[in-house]
This record gives sequence, C-alpha cells and structure tokens, in this order.
Amino acid sequence: MDYRYVLRQLGVLFVVLGASMVFSLAWAVGDYVRGNPKEMPAIIAFLSGMAICLVLGGAAYAFGKTSRTGLGRREALLLVGVSWLAGAGLAGLPFYFWAKLQTSLDHVSPFSQYVNCYFETMSGLTTTGASILTNIEACPPAILFWRAFTHWLGGLGIIVLFVAVFPALGVGGKRLFRIESPGPTPEGVRPKIRETARALWLIYLLLTLIEASSLRLCGMSWFEALSHTFATLATGGFSTRNASIGAYDSVAIEGVIIFFMILAGVNFGLYYQIAQGRLTNVLKDRELRVYLGIIAVASCIIIASLYGRTVMTTEENHVGPSLGTAVRYGLFQTVSLQTTTGFCTAEFDHWPFIAKCTLLILMFIGGSGGSTGGGIKVVRIIMAAKIIWAELEKVFRPNVIRPIRVGRAPIDPDLRLATLVYVCIILFLFAAGTILIMLCQEFGKPIDIDTAATAAAATLNNIGPGLAEVRATANYGFFSAPAKIVMSLLMVLGRLEVYAVFVLFMPRFWRSE
Amino acid sequence: MDYRYVLRQLGVLFVVLGASMVFSLAWAVGDYVRGNPKEMPAIIAFLSGMAICLVLGGAAYAFGKTSRTGLGRREALLLVGVSWLAGAGLAGLPFYFWAKLQTSLDHVSPFSQYVNCYFETMSGLTTTGASILTNIEACPPAILFWRAFTHWLGGLGIIVLFVAVFPALGVGGKRLFRIESPGPTPEGVRPKIRETARALWLIYLLLTLIEASSLRLCGMSWFEALSHTFATLATGGFSTRNASIGAYDSVAIEGVIIFFMILAGVNFGLYYQIAQGRLTNVLKDRELRVYLGIIAVASCIIIASLYGRTVMTTEENHVGPSLGTAVRYGLFQTVSLQTTTGFCTAEFDHWPFIAKCTLLILMFIGGSGGSTGGGIKVVRIIMAAKIIWAELEKVFRPNVIRPIRVGRAPIDPDLRLATLVYVCIILFLFAAGTILIMLCQEFGKPIDIDTAATAAAATLNNIGPGLAEVRATANYGFFSAPAKIVMSLLMVLGRLEVYAVFVLFMPRFWRSE
Repeated sequence: MDYRYVLRQLGVLFVVLGASMVFSLAWAVGDYVRGNPKEMPAIIAFLSGMAICLVLGGAAYAFGKTSRTGLGRREALLLVGVSWLAGAGLAGLPFYFWAKLQTSLDHVSPFSQYVNCYFETMSGLTTTGASILTNIEACPPAILFWRAFTHWLGGLGIIVLFVAVFPALGVGGKRLFRIESPGPTPEGVRPKIRETARALWLIYLLLTLIEASSLRLCGMSWFEALSHTFATLATGGFSTRNASIGAYDSVAIEGVIIFFMILAGVNFGLYYQIAQGRLTNVLKDRELRVYLGIIAVASCIIIASLYGRTVMTTEENHVGPSLGTAVRYGLFQTVSLQTTTGFCTAEFDHWPFIAKCTLLILMFIGGSGGSTGGGIKVVRIIMAAKIIWAELEKVFRPNVIRPIRVGRAPIDPDLRLATLVYVCIILFLFAAGTILIMLCQEFGKPIDIDTAATAAAATLNNIGPGLAEVRATANYGFFSAPAKIVMSLLMVLGRLEVYAVFVLFMPRFWRSE
Repeated sequence: MDYRYVLRQLGVLFVVLGASMVFSLAWAVGDYVRGNPKEMPAIIAFLSGMAICLVLGGAAYAFGKTSRTGLGRREALLLVGVSWLAGAGLAGLPFYFWAKLQTSLDHVSPFSQYVNCYFETMSGLTTTGASILTNIEACPPAILFWRAFTHWLGGLGIIVLFVAVFPALGVGGKRLFRIESPGPTPEGVRPKIRETARALWLIYLLLTLIEASSLRLCGMSWFEALSHTFATLATGGFSTRNASIGAYDSVAIEGVIIFFMILAGVNFGLYYQIAQGRLTNVLKDRELRVYLGIIAVASCIIIASLYGRTVMTTEENHVGPSLGTAVRYGLFQTVSLQTTTGFCTAEFDHWPFIAKCTLLILMFIGGSGGSTGGGIKVVRIIMAAKIIWAELEKVFRPNVIRPIRVGRAPIDPDLRLATLVYVCIILFLFAAGTILIMLCQEFGKPIDIDTAATAAAATLNNIGPGLAEVRATANYGFFSAPAKIVMSLLMVLGRLEVYAVFVLFMPRFWRSE
C-alpha cells in the first residue's frame, strides 16, 4: 500500500474542501454587511474551518509523495473511504465553531456537540438529509447555506468533481471513478474518464442554474432557491425551513422540485448521451423506463390510499379530503422517497399502512444507477428480479440457458453474483443497523422497533426521514451519540455502495501483497 | 406434462394418508373402550376421513396411468407441490368432522371452520407447530394424537417415506428426493436412493422409539410421550398441553427434549454415515460444528441477558432470578427456536431486546440441511457468508480466485448463485408475507407490525410461536381467514424450500415443452 501517495491526494482533497467554504463565507460576509450581526460567529467559524482544512491539507500534501505507478486499486479504495470519513469530520467544523461562538439563540444549539456536527455533515455529504436540528430556522443563512452546499458537494460525488478538476490522477482516476460513481454500469460514461467527468460536472452545474432560477421565479429568495436546488439535485433533502417544502405551500414550487427530483434520480450518463445527440438511446433505456414506471405505479397506489382522507401537512394543517390533495401530497412524497431525496410536504407517518409500506419499499429501490439517488438502485432491482426468475425456471428446465439482459447488455455470471451479494449486504446492513440502533438506545431514550428500523433504512439508503420517532416532522437529535455514529456509518456505507468502506475493516486489505 | 401419471402417484399418496389415520383411529377406539365416551365423535371423524382419502385416492389411482418414461422433473415438482397443498386439505378432515360431531365442549371448537383445520394440518405436515387452538386440552386424545402424527408424517417428509415404501417410482424417485430432502447437498445420501430412503426411515423410527421411551421414563404417559416425540423429531412443536413443555415443569423432560431437538436439527445423512461406520467423517462435518457452535454462542447470549431477571413460564409463574433459571429456560428456548421446533417453557416475548433479537435471527438460520428443521439452513448460511466475504475481497484483489468450500467440497458458481437467490427469496417472502398479513387484517382484528412480521417469520421458517400477539402463550386463532391462507402458503413454501410451490405459479411451467 502506497500510504504516502494516498496522503498526498487526501491533502489535495482537504484543500479543495476548505476552499469550497469560501462561498458560504462570502454569504456570511454579505449578510453581515447587509446588517445581520448574527452572521459574525459564522464568519469566524468559516475562517477557522478553512484555516484548519488548508493547514491539514497542505501538511498532508507536503508530507505525501507522488507515485510513479499512479493510483492502485487498494490505494483508490482507501482514498475514497477515508476521504468521506475524514471529510465529514472537517466539513463539520464550521457548525461546531459557530455553535460555540454564537450568542443569539435562547437555547444551546445541538451543534455544540461535535457528534451532531459529524452526523449532520455526513448526512450532507452522503446526500441523506437526516438532520439533528430541531429548529432549523434558528441558524443563520450562511450556516444553512453550507449545510445545503455539503449536499451539492457530495451530490455527484466530491471525487467525481475531484477527477474532473484535478487531472493529475491519470489512469488511477478511472478506478476511482468506477468505485465512486453510483450504480454498476454507468453506460456511456466509460471512455476518456477525465473529459466525461468534466462534462458531468457541467451538466450538474447547468441543472443547478436552471432549477435555482425556476425556484427564484416561483417566489423563493436566491438563498432559498440555491439551498433547495443543492438539496434537490443531490437528492439530499436538507431544507432551510423547519417544515421542509411544506412551509411554502406552493404548488408551483412543489412542481419544480418534483420535476428536478425525478431528473436527479436518472443516470447522469444519459444526460451525457443527450449532450452527444444520442437521444434515441436514452428513450430506449430500460432502467429509465422502469424507474419512471415505478414512480407512476407507486404514485397511483399511494394516491388511491389517500383518497377520501385528510392529509396533515408538515405545517401540521389538516387539508382535504379531496382528489387534489391526495394527488398533490401523494405524488410529492412518492417522488421524494423513491429518489431518496427526503423533502416533505406531508406527515406520511399518519398515512394508511399500504401507503407507508409502499414508501418503505421505494426507499430500498432508490434512484437509477449513476444518479445522485441512493438505495439499492433500479438497475440492480431489475437484474435481481430477472436472476431470481431465471433461477426458478431453471428448477424445471435445467438445460435451457437464457442470457439475462438489461436493455441490450447481457449480464455475465460474475455480475449476477455481485448483484445478489450487494442486495444481501444491504439487507444485512439494514438488519444489523436496526439492532445496533436499538442496543445503542438501551442507555438513552428508549425507542420502538419501527423507529430503529426506519432510521436504519432512511440512513442506509440515504433518504432522511423515516417513520415513528424519525417521521417527517421529527428529527434525529434525540438519539444517543453511539447511535448517531452507527447511523453515520450506515450513511457512508450506503453512499459508497458498501465496498469502499467495508474493505477498510478486512484484515487482508491492509496486508501487503 | 404427464398429468395422468401425476394423478396416479397422488392417488397412492392419498391412500397412504388415509391408511395412516388407522393409528389415531385405534387410539380413539381404545380410549372409547376404556370408558371415554368423548372419543365417539373422533372415531366417526377418522372413519369418514379415511373413507374419503381411500375413495379419492383410489379414484385418482384408477383414472391415472403408469408412465413408461418414469417421473420427469416437472411431474415430480407438480407432485410434490400438489401433494402438500392437497394433502393438508385431506388430513384436516378428521378435525373438521370431529368439531361438527362433538357435543362435549362448552364452546364452539375452532375446528368447526374448515380454514382452521387446513391451517392446523398444514402447520402439522410442514412441521411448523403454529396452532389455532386456544384450549388444546379440550380436544380428546385421539384428535391430539393425529395432530402430532401429522408432524411425524411431514417430518422426514411424507415423500421420503413414499420413496422408501413404494419403490414403484423408480428413477423418478431420485429427482423427487432431491426436491424433497431439505438442504442443498445431503452428503452421503446420494447413491441408491431407495435403500437410503429406507435406511433414513429406520433411523427416524429408531429415534422415535428411543425418545418416546425416554419421555415415558421421565413420567409422561405413552400418549404424551409419543405425541411429543412426533413433535420433537419432526421439529414441529405441537404439544398436548396448553402450556407446551412448560406444563410439565420437569428438568428431566426438558433435558430429553433438548437433546432430541438438537439431534433432529442435524443432517440425517450423518446418521446414515454413522450407521455405515464412518464416524470420523461425521465428526469433521463442517455444518455440524457450526450448527452446534451457533447453539452454544446463542445460548450464552440469551442466558447472559436473562441473568438477574425473573422468567415467566408458559404456566404464567414467575421464577428466579437465578443462574439456574436463566440457563434452564434460556437453553430450552434457544434450542427450540434454532431447530425450528417451537416448544416453549417460558414466555420469551417478555425477554430483553437482545434475547428476542437473537431468537429471531436463529429462526432464520434454522436447522442443518437434510434435517427436519426449517429456516434457511446452517449450510446455506455458511455458504452465503463465505460468498459475500469472497466478493468483498475481490474488490481489492480482482485477480485472486479462491475456491469457496464447505468442508472439503468446493462450491461451484452455479450453486453460489442458487444459494444467494434462495436467501433473497426467503427475505422477499418474509417481507411480502408480513405486508400481506397486515393487509388481510385490515378487515379483521387490527395487529401491529411486530405480530405480522414474527407471524410471517415463524410460519415461513416453520417454527410456530413468534412475538407480540403470536407469542408463546398466544395462538393464531384470531387471524382472519385470508391471513390464515397466506400463512399456510408461507409454511409450505418454507418447508418445500420454495421451488416446488413457486413454479406452480409460473406460466412457463404449465406450457408443454
């Protein structure tokens, strides 16, 4: 293992992370200049955070070394795993410093405990959106801007950004991208990784500009429009309001956000293909069709189950019963949970069993491979279903060998096994996470199994809200510190598709070959 | 598909089933002669049941045909699936007739609803042990004897018995056995299937005689000793007492039953090997070691969690706290649930979370392959763990190909995929079963998710008792008829290891080749 090369790359990453705080700092300064004295602690917090990132990053860079052989597979895995685990530690510093410095709140900010800052930042960088904040609106805009910005950074992957911006990685970058990019086969994102990554970055930026402008037109301030755009495109879910999107009570805003959530859950490789003019490829894409089909079917089930009932919004108003209400709130929550965004307009914990159950299944399905969405991914669900069906048929027709395809691409036996292994690991982590969270709470506030299970599902699949005590209008603040660490680990395991984190715990990974 | 050959074999099966009622009939007659007038309805019930079985079976045999080609794969699958689904329907008739005829109860017997008879018999034949009876002791001995006997019939598989007793099946028998015998590779049970099946049947009979005599020596009557032996060796769990084994409050009886439950959860192929003098093979068996290891570790966890607490027995007495109590009740429930028997001496629904959680995990692990136990099976758990570990290692060492072995036998890629597919299907059925049970209860007594989930787990894995509303001291009587049908299906799916039942729902299975 070439530790010093990994250290050098980590150094670069930390410097970039520190530098990216400049936007939030600028926001804080601007706000302060415009007459908001509450931003002063935030200014100091960002300056301190940046200083620490730059010093640590610079030191790591200086102490590290370039490698003649480039980035090896194990080095790439180590870099990815550590960059998220340590990155969340550094990116959480502004929250911590701000909480210690601020004097304007009438309560102690949850951020004054470092474990809360770590949880919140990990939730941001992994685009989960689970929050420990009880009163989001008590935080100054610059802090909330940074919180949303961690989504954006995590969104397409800070490492993809990294690959696009710093071409120094060379051939190793391809391996890195392979690990980083969510989903098993980001079709069309294979050749010339550096150019592709740059194109993806531009697409991401373009979508950001379009959505932010649209939200601005719908009546949000630029601050709110940008923050919610970051959270939408990254399928994150952090809002600047306590009542999430429900606070705006605007059909236009909800419509824009539904549209962009759906876009964010699509394989970004398809946008790259559109940019290259290969539109027919995109329209024929099997995963895209199934993804849209699932949204359509699930929406119908949920809307039907809500029909004739009143819906409680996240503002705790009871609306309806009417078909309009059922469609409006049902569709929003379906898209939000399927794409693993986690924005809320209604308290779905009060919905009928069939609706909650459908939402929970959607949480495990998640977005498309190669999107910013979490979950198991639609393409893997398609593959797993086909593999299982083929195995069942093999029982009575052992000699018929049928190739399994997704679209035109046949799936080789290695990928079949890997797909099922992945599904099993996710279900295992879900069960293990639930048990660990329950056990961690034995020494804290007791919780029921619904809370533990949906908290595990919502963090592992990078959604945010769950049911019961972690429902849409609640938050994760009450959990004990060990439970928060377990959930942070679930978030990063889900986001990095297990492998890059799991291998760090295998003794053989660390042994020299 | 050669339907008429399948019909002929089904006919033979129904005749055997009817004939097997003769023991219960004899018991009823004996009891009646000794002066128990309550047995008269049972006598009539058994006679009617036998008559129907013999007439139906005879008609099917007469209308069916022998086949020149022997039993094909699809015919074998159809025969296995239908024999359990229809067998439970016929074997439940004595319960139904008895309930309609009896006049001695002060309440309406649950058996007067046919769906309850079907559920109870399916639970018996699949060696599950989930009961719809609230007051077991209100039934006359002959009815309870038949109830326990369905376990024994199901135990090693009525089809294995079938293969041993009726050699007419010829080469097809091997295929049948392959499907019927639980577990993927019953080592040593391969050559000369007919002789092996007969040997297994003798071993089963021998174990029955030894356990029944032991229980008789411990103070049970022959009726109780035989009934509990049937339930133990089949890992069933039906008792003749409302409080299950806890009713006897006897350490000796519990000890004997623990010992034989452990034996029943072992691959019966190993006993065949012992009979052939290959003891060293048996001692080296990987699955056996892991199986015993799991029991040991799980017992320690559960005993530790019970230490210092009082335990409520199934007689609803509070005993302890003492180390002795923790060991006695902890060990019994661990072995009972790991082997998927489902006998109870204590109400484990009141135990601490860690104990309940361990028991639930054991329910999914289950017994060894080739045993009468249910669950996923120890050998599959070993394989799945090794496959997943190897896949993780492949991420950073893609070029190292390590053969995966259980004991000395390497696992080929086909079996790897099949193993993971099986695990995924079981988890899928567990989730689907839970949801369906919840939905079926929307129109009946509302239940919580703990009840639905553990009811699904306890029926799918062929255990019997679960938690909450289906805890040790409760029963399945309150469920709505649709929920009972769902659970009957889960039982047969779990018992036949999915395939033989699942394929019946695939359109391609029915199409001629």
